[in-house]
Amino acid sequence: MSTIFSKIINGEIPSYKIAEDEKHIAFLDAMPLVKGHTLVVPKKETDLIFDLDSEDYKELWAFTQDIAKQIKKAIPCKRVGVAVVGLEVPHAHIHLIPLNSMDDLNFKNARLIFTPEEYKEIQESIIKA
Amino acid sequence: MSTIFSKIINGEIPSYKIAEDEKHIAFLDAMPLVKGHTLVVPKKETDLIFDLDSEDYKELWAFTQDIAKQIKKAIPCKRVGVAVVGLEVPHAHIHLIPLNSMDDLNFKNARLIFTPEEYKEIQESIIKA
Repeated sequence: MSTIFSKIINGEIPSYKIAEDEKHIAFLDAMPLVKGHTLVVPKKETDLIFDLDSEDYKELWAFTQDIAKQIKKAIPCKRVGVAVVGLEVPHAHIHLIPLNSMDDLNFKNARLIFTPEEYKEIQESIIKA
Repeated sequence: MSTIFSKIINGEIPSYKIAEDEKHIAFLDAMPLVKGHTLVVPKKETDLIFDLDSEDYKELWAFTQDIAKQIKKAIPCKRVGVAVVGLEVPHAHIHLIPLNSMDDLNFKNARLIFTPEEYKEIQESIIKA
């Protein structure tokens, strides 16, 4: 039983990857709330983020800090917001969401759909930042 | 020029405090989305959480992990969600929100108002957990 994120980590499902190291991966959310909405995921399958071992947990947030700084440079926004919800996929993940207004971090909003070319352009702009 | 959170930290504005150490404080959100909604704040005034020095940033998240575990024990919920938005107060802060549904983390929802006795009861249940 492998979560959708483990399938992305294993390359069984394609993603627009932003960064990866031994223990973490960051990729564009396939159904973004806003342009540049990115998910950061620990490779180890753990449902609740606060159940991670304290060292793994701190490393995850350190990795997230680097990604958030890249997003901030690449995507015009007032700040990069954070959300951890996780009621839909039982594999801890952090949403990084470029914010221009309070409502950009509203999971009830309609999700955006980009063309593959647009996803690639966003991906490359964040990677280069 | 002191933010509302610095005034809480300095005791100029009262709060229902959950925990405090040299560098951080956690207290109940005065206008909670749900029962147990808590704010975690670094004492140093920094607007953007990702601009914190990497050590301060990791310590803040480590402190947050402990608080989130206490909230999970005290407040009936499926999990404790996280949000960092920060468009209203220019002093980095982490929302910890006990979640039972996706919509519990929607900042457009009406805020709850409790009596002082109710706030105290929630505060004590989290502190004891």
